[in-house]
Amino acid sequence: MTTLNSEKVFRDPILGFIHVDDSIILDLINSHEMQRLRRIKHLGVANSVFHGGEQSRFQHSLGVYEISRRMIQALDDNEKFANERHWDHENDLLVQAAALLHDVGHGAYSHTFEHLFDTVHEQFTQKIIVDPSTEVNAILKTVSNDFPERVAAVIGKSYPDKRVVQLISSQLDADRMDYLLRDAYYTGAEYGRYDIERILRLMRPIKDGFAFDIAGVHSIEDYVISRYQMYLQVYFHPVSRGMEVVLENLLIRAQDIFDKDPDNPIFFPIIRPIFALKNKIDIQDYISLDDSVFNTAFNIWQKVDDKILADLSKRFLDRKPLKSIVLNEKTKDLIPSLRKKIKDRGFDPKYYTGENDATDLPYESYSPKTGEEGIKFVYPDGQQVELSKLSPLVEAINGKESIDRRFFFPREMLSNPEINQLYLKYKKTY
Amino acid sequence: MTTLNSEKVFRDPILGFIHVDDSIILDLINSHEMQRLRRIKHLGVANSVFHGGEQSRFQHSLGVYEISRRMIQALDDNEKFANERHWDHENDLLVQAAALLHDVGHGAYSHTFEHLFDTVHEQFTQKIIVDPSTEVNAILKTVSNDFPERVAAVIGKSYPDKRVVQLISSQLDADRMDYLLRDAYYTGAEYGRYDIERILRLMRPIKDGFAFDIAGVHSIEDYVISRYQMYLQVYFHPVSRGMEVVLENLLIRAQDIFDKDPDNPIFFPIIRPIFALKNKIDIQDYISLDDSVFNTAFNIWQKVDDKILADLSKRFLDRKPLKSIVLNEKTKDLIPSLRKKIKDRGFDPKYYTGENDATDLPYESYSPKTGEEGIKFVYPDGQQVELSKLSPLVEAINGKESIDRRFFFPREMLSNPEINQLYLKYKKTY
Amino acid sequence: MTTLNSEKVFRDPILGFIHVDDSIILDLINSHEMQRLRRIKHLGVANSVFHGGEQSRFQHSLGVYEISRRMIQALDDNEKFANERHWDHENDLLVQAAALLHDVGHGAYSHTFEHLFDTVHEQFTQKIIVDPSTEVNAILKTVSNDFPERVAAVIGKSYPDKRVVQLISSQLDADRMDYLLRDAYYTGAEYGRYDIERILRLMRPIKDGFAFDIAGVHSIEDYVISRYQMYLQVYFHPVSRGMEVVLENLLIRAQDIFDKDPDNPIFFPIIRPIFALKNKIDIQDYISLDDSVFNTAFNIWQKVDDKILADLSKRFLDRKPLKSIVLNEKTKDLIPSLRKKIKDRGFDPKYYTGENDATDLPYESYSPKTGEEGIKFVYPDGQQVELSKLSPLVEAINGKESIDRRFFFPREMLSNPEINQLYLKYKKTY
Amino acid sequence: MTTLNSEKVFRDPILGFIHVDDSIILDLINSHEMQRLRRIKHLGVANSVFHGGEQSRFQHSLGVYEISRRMIQALDDNEKFANERHWDHENDLLVQAAALLHDVGHGAYSHTFEHLFDTVHEQFTQKIIVDPSTEVNAILKTVSNDFPERVAAVIGKSYPDKRVVQLISSQLDADRMDYLLRDAYYTGAEYGRYDIERILRLMRPIKDGFAFDIAGVHSIEDYVISRYQMYLQVYFHPVSRGMEVVLENLLIRAQDIFDKDPDNPIFFPIIRPIFALKNKIDIQDYISLDDSVFNTAFNIWQKVDDKILADLSKRFLDRKPLKSIVLNEKTKDLIPSLRKKIKDRGFDPKYYTGENDATDLPYESYSPKTGEEGIKFVYPDGQQVELSKLSPLVEAINGKESIDRRFFFPREMLSNPEINQLYLKYKKTY
Repeated sequence: MTTLNSEKVFRDPILGFIHVDDSIILDLINSHEMQRLRRIKHLGVANSVFHGGEQSRFQHSLGVYEISRRMIQALDDNEKFANERHWDHENDLLVQAAALLHDVGHGAYSHTFEHLFDTVHEQFTQKIIVDPSTEVNAILKTVSNDFPERVAAVIGKSYPDKRVVQLISSQLDADRMDYLLRDAYYTGAEYGRYDIERILRLMRPIKDGFAFDIAGVHSIEDYVISRYQMYLQVYFHPVSRGMEVVLENLLIRAQDIFDKDPDNPIFFPIIRPIFALKNKIDIQDYISLDDSVFNTAFNIWQKVDDKILADLSKRFLDRKPLKSIVLNEKTKDLIPSLRKKIKDRGFDPKYYTGENDATDLPYESYSPKTGEEGIKFVYPDGQQVELSKLSPLVEAINGKESIDRRFFFPREMLSNPEINQLYLKYKKTY
Repeated sequence: MTTLNSEKVFRDPILGFIHVDDSIILDLINSHEMQRLRRIKHLGVANSVFHGGEQSRFQHSLGVYEISRRMIQALDDNEKFANERHWDHENDLLVQAAALLHDVGHGAYSHTFEHLFDTVHEQFTQKIIVDPSTEVNAILKTVSNDFPERVAAVIGKSYPDKRVVQLISSQLDADRMDYLLRDAYYTGAEYGRYDIERILRLMRPIKDGFAFDIAGVHSIEDYVISRYQMYLQVYFHPVSRGMEVVLENLLIRAQDIFDKDPDNPIFFPIIRPIFALKNKIDIQDYISLDDSVFNTAFNIWQKVDDKILADLSKRFLDRKPLKSIVLNEKTKDLIPSLRKKIKDRGFDPKYYTGENDATDLPYESYSPKTGEEGIKFVYPDGQQVELSKLSPLVEAINGKESIDRRFFFPREMLSNPEINQLYLKYKKTY
Repeated sequence: MTTLNSEKVFRDPILGFIHVDDSIILDLINSHEMQRLRRIKHLGVANSVFHGGEQSRFQHSLGVYEISRRMIQALDDNEKFANERHWDHENDLLVQAAALLHDVGHGAYSHTFEHLFDTVHEQFTQKIIVDPSTEVNAILKTVSNDFPERVAAVIGKSYPDKRVVQLISSQLDADRMDYLLRDAYYTGAEYGRYDIERILRLMRPIKDGFAFDIAGVHSIEDYVISRYQMYLQVYFHPVSRGMEVVLENLLIRAQDIFDKDPDNPIFFPIIRPIFALKNKIDIQDYISLDDSVFNTAFNIWQKVDDKILADLSKRFLDRKPLKSIVLNEKTKDLIPSLRKKIKDRGFDPKYYTGENDATDLPYESYSPKTGEEGIKFVYPDGQQVELSKLSPLVEAINGKESIDRRFFFPREMLSNPEINQLYLKYKKTY
Repeated sequence: MTTLNSEKVFRDPILGFIHVDDSIILDLINSHEMQRLRRIKHLGVANSVFHGGEQSRFQHSLGVYEISRRMIQALDDNEKFANERHWDHENDLLVQAAALLHDVGHGAYSHTFEHLFDTVHEQFTQKIIVDPSTEVNAILKTVSNDFPERVAAVIGKSYPDKRVVQLISSQLDADRMDYLLRDAYYTGAEYGRYDIERILRLMRPIKDGFAFDIAGVHSIEDYVISRYQMYLQVYFHPVSRGMEVVLENLLIRAQDIFDKDPDNPIFFPIIRPIFALKNKIDIQDYISLDDSVFNTAFNIWQKVDDKILADLSKRFLDRKPLKSIVLNEKTKDLIPSLRKKIKDRGFDPKYYTGENDATDLPYESYSPKTGEEGIKFVYPDGQQVELSKLSPLVEAINGKESIDRRFFFPREMLSNPEINQLYLKYKKTY
């Protein structure tokens, strides 16, 4: 660790101040790859519904770093209450660098983008960290030759010290703790608030991880429910998903055009590689892509000759989401006929309809798939109990996936009285 | 006014809810020109210092609309306390449309942009409103044929009813009231907070405008000081101005290249018209420009052959601001020699230095230039008094321009010990 | 309704402003009986744990009035979305007066007090309203001769218009809505927060009451859970209950002394009637009692000859709560022996131990006892559904009583190692 | 310092948590004399205007302790930026104990009380600390025999280490920092808010005290102005001063009765000593007095035979303030005739009128009286500058006393049209 002459702080509306006193962290923040995250919105298209939700992945990354820093401090402060091995300060920089960089490989309009181009942002994050062409890699190497690989291993969950991994990836990690508070603050949806100061105070080191003093059950319960509600109310919102479907279909159309006519000049140089190579794209070309590049493509494409591409681009820029109905037992049999009516109206269903499933597993006391365990509490005598055993509210959602399936179609179809009636009946549950 | 079937609301983190019950307002919000403001940041490059400050001009415009709506309601509610002509509800839609559209002609990275291209955003706002090619114009015309001109006149301050104008443009107008609260919320700089609910409660209609009950002196004093402090602490921040100078010099370099070689392909079609025509640009071409287009240009340009353009583009994207010292009696004579040293180091001063004056007139009890008056208070007996007569704090800044002049230069020059010392001495006052 | 010349407002830290424009309401606020509530703390002894929780019943009463006012306005505004009879503005003052006065008969240190003296504060509230000796009664009579009885009937839930009653007494009434926000704000326990603005926006009139638009399920779910958490974390807190037991035992001791020696001068005139007459106390004597009178009694009694009364008084004033363990299957058989040890140590178990059950029914979809129904939602087509059918979280606590039973004993007993061990094991769950 | 087994925290709505890890501090908090402060309101009668302002001196004392603790930590953390002697951790407990105890001698309804009985609360604070009869004294003596005297010396400003004194008593001390935030939070008057986190971050140790990094000028300016505005808007409020005059006159009347008839039984034992001995009162009798005792006296006295005492007691309990006009050059000559009219109406001017001056010196760059200096800033080169030199806002109020003089009289006089007119004209400025 190279200590800075003077602590550097960043004013943060959610966490007060982000404190940096290690020059490696400051250099990483100032790197080309991290600065790119300023041009990628954290919530993708959700600002089409919650107009305040403009926060960037850059500020979220600073927040995750800061929370990881406070978690380390909390573990350190609270060791005295536990009969456990000390937090190893050798790991401080490793945890903080992994926290800061955990999203560095995020693509523009991330989730839609990944779906289309078969990219996995966690893999690109790790690539950027270990690829010798990046500034991030060069900075990490000043610590030690294998430091980039160690940071990547923490993010990839393969790092041997599970306590380190748990701070960055678990059901109560620095990532989730930041995005709940941040998304709640910026969207104005208050559900995401929970008492971070109290939760940190009650963190306790245990073997291979951390747990919480039994006094913290309700604070953590509140956090889990906050997350559950943010998913249902913000992240699942049918209108922003109506925008995602526009975006997805628009990129599918572009890809289809590219596949037939790879020299078409609408694919200007900076945007071409992703259509040409998808997840085989060169890492530097990948890094060149941000929300702005795609917005500019759509801005240009809204005036191209291809009617469908132009129309979808304009719908996206002008925020004209597709409308939707819930897909359930009662509606699923209606879709083929609905699709036909859409086609008869002149809309190609491939580009003007879509099915979209929003899913989240709000809490899992034990994951058979990953072997990951739930959030644990410790009694004064050392006994450990898992959250769902203590909270009937958490038990009520434990292991139960939240799902919202929808079928999307053009708003214009609502002029059909039959479809309009269907829409009014099934447009939303709540 | 065409009332909507049901009130439409937008969740706003600052104002709670934005309420819309007129379909004209809803159509304007959904128009092509207003949606473009989602892609223009309200604070330009200030998010380079305050990473939270990502808010768009779109949400600010919604906020100004909402505050104008509340002001009208306040004037209406509070008429009973005043011996004045009624608020004329015929003006409701006019005020609200003007509030919503007041920034519709803002350029990307606005202030720098205007400086370079001789554009004036207020003029483009009025053009967009009255130009028959725009969606906004078509929507306004559904009210009456001359409605676009009337809205434009309110924004241009030439509208005959001064009370209407004052709500949109004065020292305590809906625009300022929104941006102070919003910028404070997003940046985390708390200075901008003031008690909007109390101020609205104390608004009183007077002849040709509005004033405040004498009980509100301290609330309004607080607002004026909040604005003064936001200027000094946020809007004048030397680091974001160091980014503005990079941006300005980068655009100057691009213009110089264009002027010599107008066919250079680095000017891709969407960006070309502004370099070619500047403020003579076609209105639709102007509307195509947003922050994303410029970001994409810089993204592309960072790899072009022109070393200076490429370097400045990269500095801008990677947030490498120029450093600065205050320009004052003690430093101004040092500039020529400093400029020479910069040149000797291989930096062309035209593109790697800059002078930048940040100025603001925090309050004016009377403007000799425009004839505009200060903020007025009414006693129960109807007597009116202007704010600076009542508040020694406001009197202390009345008519006194806040100025911060700076000379900017590349960070690399700090390796010169002499310049470094000069920098440490004059980099900031506070 | 007698409209005031100018609206009167009270600055409220939770609701912004309390608005009064009816002179009857202002007169009630200024009455002798309402002003007494300034000297009764809303949370009783809970400020012994949450030192911020000093709020008075007076401010809570203003808050309930204000929320009832906003509910009426919401029902009025939202009628357009419902196919229901109008809100009858004839009822405005009735609802607002009942809301303001709903706690006017609360005793000092209320719940303990009621238990001891067989008083029921709801009955005293109704008595104060209908008794011709009170200022409140005289003010209400200026509306109509039967107005006091009508207000009392609303509070007593016997008023025929169920919609009126539901605003004041139901699972989502103005009373609960205020105390959750207020107690959360003052104690600093954030659980109590919920989105009141959104809930009011989504209120819909239905036959005999009100319901909510289906869009509000998560906001109301959040309110129900907030209330559940406030009970478990704040209202059930074992330390403040340890103070309640001290208070209760202290009053039992005083009553025992009084019963043996009614002329004992430690019962100074203002405190004597409640010991002499209990719930037969004259209404004016009842009104004379407030927290201050009891505090002063304890202040005096801490120096009297009766050792037990003096000691308990001092423990109460100096905040020395009894300690406690949970009463459950494992501990209940230990109590007799524990009680014996306490007695052997010289503490009379009658005055130095206590059992105390904290119970709450967080939500009930239907109460078989009262026939009262749960919170209802309406779909656009008019269909109604009850909350627990829509929310798995609410269903998880529906009809299940939260209970925390405890046995309390003097802190001094912890010097006994065996008891100390028992205490460490059973002092808290969470 | 005796470290506690586990840190003890108190949930505080303003500061988050109050942290205690020294058993001496915990014992002091739990002492008889500190617990008494729970029963003394911090704002005296100001809750008669701001109904939220119920906070106790106890919680304020915890807040001052916590801020002093954070100040010490800030000085410690920020030593690296200064070329100064270290903060001496030997002083930690001294500072924290002085902060916690600084108000322990406050009387009930303090300022009025002091005026009447010639008591000075700072002197009683020191007496309680050094008097061997108190629990506080016994606890402090466990540190060292002279520790009580050292704590008292810090509070009395005679302690030789000026840095220690400055933390507790200066223009930016822990006391002021707490009460501004706390009073703003509880009253809902937002003026008192300022950025405490930033101010602490910028604290720098200097010789004999502390100063601030030059970057903090606007944060501190904001603090000074917040304080100025809280005085004018909250502490000077004419209605709560109308209550203070009632209280003062009521106590004068009681004293007059006592002086003529010392055996009058209306002076029950606990209240008698202060009337009999005034500032010669025994320290234990002084400690017995709190707001509750006085409230109970007024409660009893409202029914005694002395008409004036009974009437004033009832006015006080029922919140019937005297009305007031500003005393200035225009009004002062009217007072004798006004007083005569009041007398003619049957009100004894001695008990039914009053003059009351509210004064505050918002900031002083240098106090000729005490030699105390203003708030200082340090430049990176070590140069020091005082605040008013840097802030035109602070310079505008520097050394200028805020004064509001008023003449108070019974509300009943307003039925006289002439007096009513005078009242409407001079009742308030703003």
